Amino acid sequence: MKRVADRLLIAGVGLIGGSLALALRQRGLVGEIVGLGRSRRNMRVALERGIIDRVERDPARAAEGVDLVVVAVPVGAIAAVVAGLAPHLPERAVITDAGSVKGPVVGAVERTLGASASRFCGAHPIAGTENSGAAAATATLLEAERCVLTPTPRTSRTTVRRTRALWAGAGMRVETLPAAEHDPIFALVSHLPHIAAFALVQTVADAGSASRALTYAAGGFRDGTRVAGSSPEMWADIFLANRRAVTKAIDQFVGSCTRLRNAIAAEDREALEAALADAQRVRRRLSSPGHASARRRRP
Amino acid sequence: MKRVADRLLIAGVGLIGGSLALALRQRGLVGEIVGLGRSRRNMRVALERGIIDRVERDPARAAEGVDLVVVAVPVGAIAAVVAGLAPHLPERAVITDAGSVKGPVVGAVERTLGASASRFCGAHPIAGTENSGAAAATATLLEAERCVLTPTPRTSRTTVRRTRALWAGAGMRVETLPAAEHDPIFALVSHLPHIAAFALVQTVADAGSASRALTYAAGGFRDGTRVAGSSPEMWADIFLANRRAVTKAIDQFVGSCTRLRNAIAAEDREALEAALADAQRVRRRLSSPGHASARRRRP
Repeated sequence: MKRVADRLLIAGVGLIGGSLALALRQRGLVGEIVGLGRSRRNMRVALERGIIDRVERDPARAAEGVDLVVVAVPVGAIAAVVAGLAPHLPERAVITDAGSVKGPVVGAVERTLGASASRFCGAHPIAGTENSGAAAATATLLEAERCVLTPTPRTSRTTVRRTRALWAGAGMRVETLPAAEHDPIFALVSHLPHIAAFALVQTVADAGSASRALTYAAGGFRDGTRVAGSSPEMWADIFLANRRAVTKAIDQFVGSCTRLRNAIAAEDREALEAALADAQRVRRRLSSPGHASARRRRP
Repeated sequence: MKRVADRLLIAGVGLIGGSLALALRQRGLVGEIVGLGRSRRNMRVALERGIIDRVERDPARAAEGVDLVVVAVPVGAIAAVVAGLAPHLPERAVITDAGSVKGPVVGAVERTLGASASRFCGAHPIAGTENSGAAAATATLLEAERCVLTPTPRTSRTTVRRTRALWAGAGMRVETLPAAEHDPIFALVSHLPHIAAFALVQTVADAGSASRALTYAAGGFRDGTRVAGSSPEMWADIFLANRRAVTKAIDQFVGSCTRLRNAIAAEDREALEAALADAQRVRRRLSSPGHASARRRRP
């Protein structure tokens, strides 16, 4: 494969940015990797692990001679980081991000870039664990996972091509989707399960005998709430950025919970079993070997 | 260790009953194992896998010469199975169950047994997967997991001792808890996560573009809904048997979801982050190596 960048700038060298850097480096697809970040401790880890070659704290210096930029910071900070870098970037430089909400992010970045919006292509690499930071990055995190690009009519073909090459270079299966379709889908399959996990833990913690109850938490509770160990700042950002679709998804979910509750309270076994059987059928499709998302288990 | 039974009767040779039989047999703690069950196919699997030595379909014949009975059928059927067996059991025979709801089950069984209620001790082996049936049973499923016994003032000491020896013989860590404490705890840490999983899958399935959305379901959704692949009949039974505690838990959970929803809708970042951080703290305690439930990962 051809190099995706001679000098790659990663703004935010966390789980995703760091894993991308490690994967590209392992495949020899990148020259120098520059890291831009706020946390001194995290940047030291990134340097020590060989994820980046050098650290910059000033956007103007970080942007120097760069031909590709990945903004892998929390969703709420992406547009501001782009705004800080844009005036200093060489003309050829293409920008992408790694945010899991796309509509508001892409809109804000395009407004920020104005006439040069053609150089930006939004991306959502669908991967992650409940851990964060450069310390958690691995060269295989992104491998074989899907990456959704959300180009707009303003995005240039060259930008789409180079952004695709970047994420594909890390082993991802790249596809495109309009941001307006992306956000409601991820509200349902990603953001809502996180809300449910946080709320499950909260419910148990609020129930007085919490510490006692928690000692009995078996597989179902552990699996169902694993993601509640994720970063509160990052998720607050995501929920707020995608708030229309997320609140709608929560309303639908609360409706489902309430229907199950009412069937239980009314001792309506028939309605209850029918609802559970429907869900079981859908869920089993997810686990079937032919299903894309079942192909690979998380590490 | 001493034999726990010369002739053990397992009524309901499914995931739990079958795994118990395999574990006891592997350790040489049991003489003959008799299986009582309705499904011919499942009983054939149990025989072929060497889980049981013989199959009986008639309670009177199944009960003959038995000194220990494990009723491992769905919660709603336990008392009826005990009622069918009790008149035919030798006087020395002790009875236990494997239901994950205890108050109503123990009450119904004690009413059924009347004067001989002293021979019954309720048990809840805390183990399972989303699979069921004799085919899914393994000799290690119960190993090192907890088993809660719920004796009442009517349960004899001998019954408690022999029931404890049975479950401990399969490698379980046995403890006791009053049924009235058991049920609200398991409504929170086990039954509620199942409700949430079923409702999550339903919400996505109801959302029109379901099949498309499901192809994007990543780790969080898969983990959070794994248990929605479980048996609808079994779970309908559990929810209905524990309906007071389960509906209360759902109400609290819906309250938590709604508070998060409102903080998102109001763009109240401070309240949102605080709530998520609280949940994260509690959840991380669960994953810490010192925590009992983190000691062993599910297979």
